[in-house]
Amino acid sequence: MELKPLIFITNDDGYDSKGIKALIEAVKDLGEVLVVAPDGPRSGMSGAITSTMPIRVRLIEKSDDIKIYACTGTPVDCVKLGLSEIATRKPDIVLTGINHGSNASICVLYSGTMGAAIEGCIFKIPSIGFSLLDHANNADFTESKIYVKLLAEQVLKEGLPTGTCLNVNIPKGSDIKGLRICRQASGQWIKEFKSSEDGSGQEIYWLTGQFRNDVPDDMTTDEWVLARNYISIVPIKVDMTDHSYVDKLKKWENLIK
Amino acid sequence: MELKPLIFITNDDGYDSKGIKALIEAVKDLGEVLVVAPDGPRSGMSGAITSTMPIRVRLIEKSDDIKIYACTGTPVDCVKLGLSEIATRKPDIVLTGINHGSNASICVLYSGTMGAAIEGCIFKIPSIGFSLLDHANNADFTESKIYVKLLAEQVLKEGLPTGTCLNVNIPKGSDIKGLRICRQASGQWIKEFKSSEDGSGQEIYWLTGQFRNDVPDDMTTDEWVLARNYISIVPIKVDMTDHSYVDKLKKWENLIK
Repeated sequence: MELKPLIFITNDDGYDSKGIKALIEAVKDLGEVLVVAPDGPRSGMSGAITSTMPIRVRLIEKSDDIKIYACTGTPVDCVKLGLSEIATRKPDIVLTGINHGSNASICVLYSGTMGAAIEGCIFKIPSIGFSLLDHANNADFTESKIYVKLLAEQVLKEGLPTGTCLNVNIPKGSDIKGLRICRQASGQWIKEFKSSEDGSGQEIYWLTGQFRNDVPDDMTTDEWVLARNYISIVPIKVDMTDHSYVDKLKKWENLIK
Repeated sequence: MELKPLIFITNDDGYDSKGIKALIEAVKDLGEVLVVAPDGPRSGMSGAITSTMPIRVRLIEKSDDIKIYACTGTPVDCVKLGLSEIATRKPDIVLTGINHGSNASICVLYSGTMGAAIEGCIFKIPSIGFSLLDHANNADFTESKIYVKLLAEQVLKEGLPTGTCLNVNIPKGSDIKGLRICRQASGQWIKEFKSSEDGSGQEIYWLTGQFRNDVPDDMTTDEWVLARNYISIVPIKVDMTDHSYVDKLKKWENLIK
């Protein structure tokens, strides 16, 4: 008997969030589902790992085709622990999200959703991170589920190159114009702090901010197509080397001999 | 009167670690130093940001040329808060480390030291992350300081391209053979968990592991040169797009219309 594909799922909003439930529902007919997700919100955890505290995991739900575990760690911990200690075979695909909020442009660097997808990719498993451009807890994932299933099926069928995963962002609402393959827009978050006082009058800072797109007219970026109601897919590399600059720096080798 | 260069420093081992003290000492003659660093260890924090808790900062030390602040946030929070709220002018360079332990290969993705350097780069400031291949609290940074100063001077003089920072790893010991410009080795951490029990007999996991180099014979990688006692410099890009794969994926645009 041929085994069904094993679909590994995690996120950064927690195992109980609406987004991960939508993701499970979108792909559950494609195979066996194993979820190992944080036991609460872990937004903005990037590729963080937990090395100074123990990590705990507990079974939440178990049926023939779906197992859900909650984990005290980060999204990347969930992938590491799930793939090394919980899965009984190597998953065919790693799916993360659906994140409540955009992970376009440089947010790929802060996102726990994308941190987890990149980790799946390090494990040499085709991996996709999904995000919906709606931060609300009760965001509507109805439309997203259609595209999530379509893309998961496509990647199960065609695979992805080793070392490359996908960052998929989906516009809010039901008026999706199509799908575009993009590059990550360059930009920066600005006005990032709101200063305030705690109960005893001590100064505190809250992270907030606005995204400033440095290339607003560049039609090849994720931000450009998302603003025009297209789903964006950016292929993301584990190898962060700036290969174009390696040769230019070679002369620096003479600094030390 | 011409202003001295402003050197912004942070790390992930905390403001009180030996490595950051070595970094400050190495570069203090090159300009004015502003340190905003975590108030304790934040290893493995990658590009994580703190959005659900307030961030606090306190002045530790202040002289004409060196100011040191401790911050409750992550390394990236330290860069964001330091540059937006504490620095009174834009720094000329961002230096992070010196990390106690290697950040070569894929560790760039987990490292708080490199998360902070990448954040400096997002702020369009030439940025370098330094790591010494010695995890010990009392690691010897004497030799490292010479190379740190040399490379900081070089970057202050020549700059770096926008969107690219440097990941510098320094072998342990005093028998340094030279400097090599490299690419990030591909690999994976394996055997990552030690399972154990807490005081009440509940199962817990501790993150541990061994690095498996997937390209041990590739002379162009950081791991290869470090094993041969060369300092490695990998230019690291903020843009994680796999540009070579964008065109190949274009046909997927037909999946949704």
